Amino acid sequence: MSHIPWPVPEPVLPSDVDPVLAHATRAAVRAFAEARRVHDRAALAEKVQIGADGTPTMRLDILVDTAVAEAANAHKVNLLSEEIGSIDNGSAVTLVVDPVDGTANAAAGVPLSAFAGVVAVDGVPKEALTCWLDTGRCWHAVAGRPTPYRTSGRRELDGAAVSLLRPHGPDDNAWWRITKRAARVRILSSSCIEAALVAEGSTDAFADAGSDTHRIMDLAAAMVTVPAAGGAVLDVHGRPLEIDPDLTRRWSGVVAASRELAEELASTIKEAL
Amino acid sequence: MSHIPWPVPEPVLPSDVDPVLAHATRAAVRAFAEARRVHDRAALAEKVQIGADGTPTMRLDILVDTAVAEAANAHKVNLLSEEIGSIDNGSAVTLVVDPVDGTANAAAGVPLSAFAGVVAVDGVPKEALTCWLDTGRCWHAVAGRPTPYRTSGRRELDGAAVSLLRPHGPDDNAWWRITKRAARVRILSSSCIEAALVAEGSTDAFADAGSDTHRIMDLAAAMVTVPAAGGAVLDVHGRPLEIDPDLTRRWSGVVAASRELAEELASTIKEAL
Repeated sequence: MSHIPWPVPEPVLPSDVDPVLAHATRAAVRAFAEARRVHDRAALAEKVQIGADGTPTMRLDILVDTAVAEAANAHKVNLLSEEIGSIDNGSAVTLVVDPVDGTANAAAGVPLSAFAGVVAVDGVPKEALTCWLDTGRCWHAVAGRPTPYRTSGRRELDGAAVSLLRPHGPDDNAWWRITKRAARVRILSSSCIEAALVAEGSTDAFADAGSDTHRIMDLAAAMVTVPAAGGAVLDVHGRPLEIDPDLTRRWSGVVAASRELAEELASTIKEAL
Repeated sequence: MSHIPWPVPEPVLPSDVDPVLAHATRAAVRAFAEARRVHDRAALAEKVQIGADGTPTMRLDILVDTAVAEAANAHKVNLLSEEIGSIDNGSAVTLVVDPVDGTANAAAGVPLSAFAGVVAVDGVPKEALTCWLDTGRCWHAVAGRPTPYRTSGRRELDGAAVSLLRPHGPDDNAWWRITKRAARVRILSSSCIEAALVAEGSTDAFADAGSDTHRIMDLAAAMVTVPAAGGAVLDVHGRPLEIDPDLTRRWSGVVAASRELAEELASTIKEAL
């Protein structure tokens, strides 16, 4: 198996990003670039342990997550991360991160993977940054502050452009029903990039069609970025989206350009499951 | 509807690209950047005429295709293009182009669209360039010369990573059968980028699961780039892939990391149709 030859650019960070979040993002990007320089595709994708979320962890994830944990420790904030799990540094601030969202893409060389980080204070998400690792493009939002992003505003599923997770089996029927009602369907295999595209109005919605694959770090950045842009984030079964150190919890997240579209997607999926 | 705010970088062209192809690529990128600067998403996506291929043409396509035609005329080569159709400048050389592959992505702001150009001499494709418009990343190959790309070499569908067009109706059954046998499925909605990812070994295959959506310009760059990297390009029904000014012709293209995988995909799709 060969190395991925493409460069990993520096992240293009807005000037007002929280310093801890900026540090963690830069550390993640640097570790990601180094991992791709040193390891070939097979080594990046090798499953080297079971992560804190209970699923096998690729070498690439570990390398990036370790760099992010060092950044969190240096600033004495807590960390909640897909692979390493929960680190309690006794702070009111927790950094919630998906070190490499779209790991399968990233390890194979499909240029759609992201670092996503959220600053939560006493469990409430306050600021989010999603960095598209292959290009350095970043989406940033702070709860309660205006953002440059506006969703498409679309309210109806019929004719919408929808991104989905690939069908997982239990959700096949719901997956197909959404696909047949949408005008366009994409599977980019990076939840955080797909959510950012909803926030900026490039697509109308992104959903897990009921497979309960989403962990909180797949949705945390969207929970800040998408409502600030006029959209909505919810769970198909109405379970509250909560930042929780218990990483065995799962959701079927729906990220949409409007509350009406999010609710129509959720009810359509629930009926079909 | 809002403008797409992201920059369009200059293409990163290898030094040995055919000068006509290089000129056409630069012209396409410049026109694409200008179109996004001037027009909002709705205006880019507006269907302003019926293209030479018989399908509605978006404003974005026309703007880029016009710039490419000017480049072809300046060099007195023939042009075969999705929208404008066939221009005969009495040359043995024909530039076969998809000015904006993934137009729906490009007009909406989903950052997966490409310019793809092929230099054909007396109808035989000799050189191909695929330029990912959102990043400037280019894939280049010349028939008969070594390329830096190697496919994954994968020979079996079971467990493969496969990109597909979204299901179109007549191909639903075949689409689903491929999805259930592959380990990973993606729908990136840009045939030329998906083919380039097969060439470089980032994914194992890309297919139209029998919907006969592909025109020759969706496959022409792959016909040079993928075999040079060890893979294969064919049609589900075994129809020869030919550069033909008759743009009503359609194929169900299969682009795969090996001939074995291409044939298994084609026969699996054919049985399920």
